[in-house]
Amino acid sequence: MKYISLLGASGSIGTQTLDVIRSHPNEFQLAAMSIGKNIELAGKIIKEFTPHLVSVANKEDCERLRQEFGSKVKFVYGEEGLIEVATYPKTDIVVNAVVGSVGLLPTLQAIEAGKTIALANKETLVTAGHIVMEAAQKRGVTILPVDSEHSAIFQCLQGEKKKNIEKIILTASGGSFRDKKREELQNVTVEEALRHPNWAMGAKITIDSATMMNKGLEVIEAHWLFHLPYEQIDVLLHKESIIHSMVQFHDSSVIAQLGTPDMRVPIQYALTYPDRFELFGAKKLNLAEVGTLHFQKVDFERYRCLKFAYEAGKAGGSLPTVLNAANEEAVAAFLNGQISFLAIEELIEQALERHHAVKQPTFDEIREIDEETRRYVKSLLI
Amino acid sequence: MKYISLLGASGSIGTQTLDVIRSHPNEFQLAAMSIGKNIELAGKIIKEFTPHLVSVANKEDCERLRQEFGSKVKFVYGEEGLIEVATYPKTDIVVNAVVGSVGLLPTLQAIEAGKTIALANKETLVTAGHIVMEAAQKRGVTILPVDSEHSAIFQCLQGEKKKNIEKIILTASGGSFRDKKREELQNVTVEEALRHPNWAMGAKITIDSATMMNKGLEVIEAHWLFHLPYEQIDVLLHKESIIHSMVQFHDSSVIAQLGTPDMRVPIQYALTYPDRFELFGAKKLNLAEVGTLHFQKVDFERYRCLKFAYEAGKAGGSLPTVLNAANEEAVAAFLNGQISFLAIEELIEQALERHHAVKQPTFDEIREIDEETRRYVKSLLI
Repeated sequence: MKYISLLGASGSIGTQTLDVIRSHPNEFQLAAMSIGKNIELAGKIIKEFTPHLVSVANKEDCERLRQEFGSKVKFVYGEEGLIEVATYPKTDIVVNAVVGSVGLLPTLQAIEAGKTIALANKETLVTAGHIVMEAAQKRGVTILPVDSEHSAIFQCLQGEKKKNIEKIILTASGGSFRDKKREELQNVTVEEALRHPNWAMGAKITIDSATMMNKGLEVIEAHWLFHLPYEQIDVLLHKESIIHSMVQFHDSSVIAQLGTPDMRVPIQYALTYPDRFELFGAKKLNLAEVGTLHFQKVDFERYRCLKFAYEAGKAGGSLPTVLNAANEEAVAAFLNGQISFLAIEELIEQALERHHAVKQPTFDEIREIDEETRRYVKSLLI
Repeated sequence: MKYISLLGASGSIGTQTLDVIRSHPNEFQLAAMSIGKNIELAGKIIKEFTPHLVSVANKEDCERLRQEFGSKVKFVYGEEGLIEVATYPKTDIVVNAVVGSVGLLPTLQAIEAGKTIALANKETLVTAGHIVMEAAQKRGVTILPVDSEHSAIFQCLQGEKKKNIEKIILTASGGSFRDKKREELQNVTVEEALRHPNWAMGAKITIDSATMMNKGLEVIEAHWLFHLPYEQIDVLLHKESIIHSMVQFHDSSVIAQLGTPDMRVPIQYALTYPDRFELFGAKKLNLAEVGTLHFQKVDFERYRCLKFAYEAGKAGGSLPTVLNAANEEAVAAFLNGQISFLAIEELIEQALERHHAVKQPTFDEIREIDEETRRYVKSLLI
């Protein structure tokens, strides 16, 4: 039996993690979880999975749940609550499915507590890859990717030696606007942007997919997860999202991981690793039915966010934090109808240009730069 | 340094094995080799690689080489010669690249001598899979596939557990006539049949590729190599030959091996396994350049040889021997202009229908049935 702490139970990755736990009751148990403000869902999950510890966003909701469930469950809240869930003693694996940079501190604390990390929170590695990977190495903690692309690469690397890698190739669907030219992006709506052709995901990540910032963050994440320089990380447009990513070795052999788009596959793989379990109710890949797979070079002028991400990643230091914070604020503004789609990348570009990079930012510096960047981007919105 | 015995040095796999040895002089050394009747090539190889032991097809050639090279090299001939090369004491890996059922005995002898086998000779497993795999298991000998499809599957299985395999998927280019309908095959010529769209291979295997008997033999080989029932072995048409084969696991994840068609990749992988070396001068896969990959269900009535192979494989016993021997004779007759292309499958069908299967044929019975089948097919040609 593996005991699981789930950070971010109400999101897309969170609910699918619960699906996986539900379908293997003899293998997995939800020991602890955090959820934001969706208290109704929290109640349902508690009734079904009976976790020992639950953290919510604020004190009031915490009190309400205490009254409803009594002492069977321990209720906590806020950032401290998140950390308590991340470091819950009985827990073997922490699934970090929190969206945004609030996911960083719990990851670091879970590493300190010696937990295996199943990481779906991109910001953890994007903003603090140097701190997180060093801590994980020091504590001998395994960081398992939950993202479909990184899980694909991780799977392709099983039984292989790092020294034999020539490059890794992250595939990108191109998002909701992949068939549009740059000049057609001027007046696209939020609704159009949210219609991802292949994957059902949260709003933030769907917009990131349309700007390809999503892929950019993944490139930076891959740099840290697989200890590879940016020159060895490629992005390839592949609109069907069937090949989830690939590794090319020095002998010119390429190993790829494929499947129908289903986030439960990488989630479950992280939980069962190094084993695999049957995934119930999964649609098996039938390539004869799919018929054709397409591949195309990425145009960095069409997808400028991807270019920014490579530049910020290569420059390193605090620049990826600025990239990420500016992107979060810009995407939120777009979703709120405050700015146009193309303004997202303009805001990010301005934030990056203005920033004076710090080389090896500490955790506190990262927080500060994150907040400062957000304030700056917000100031541009008025 | 790994010492290599190469059986079948003049063929397509043989010369490419020499390419691999040539490009890694500090890693590999040709210790012994066999070559058929191409004595001029034998002389060149001896001068370049200075093997200790060389076997040729007949006594006269053996004498000629002895006179030319003197006592620096030991020369032997015939079946005994082949076995001496296969069991040469200093040898670590035996590359069996002999074409046809003559490859069987040297494989068995090499296994007895405890050598690692890099197997390119299909007939070894097709006709005597039960004997060969049992012997390999008993002696603790590793059999490494050299075929691109089986090497692909072998690579995809690194770091994975057999119990998690749902099925393996062998890809098939469809051969020279993949774009022709069955009724258009009536009058195709030998020359047309030899024009394989993707791979540069020997004549026999190119014809086998056009009839898809090649894939049928691979299915039987895969059954033995990976200990899988035929129900877990699929064939998928994939005309670009970029995905060399795949493994689907129970969790619905698929791992595939890809590359530009280059037989040196699987050859070198077998020699470097479990490591990989740089493959010099290889054309790296560029999927953006390839653009599109196509996949299609196999029609067993269009490719009847594949159907025969599944049937013979499932029935087991001596039937795969009949399948293989009848095919060798029929293909030889087609290449000699004695029969039409579609007559190949008719001859195989007749041979299979007539045969009374032996359940667990011994090595001698396999030889006998092989010879008897050849006589029968030849008798139909008159």
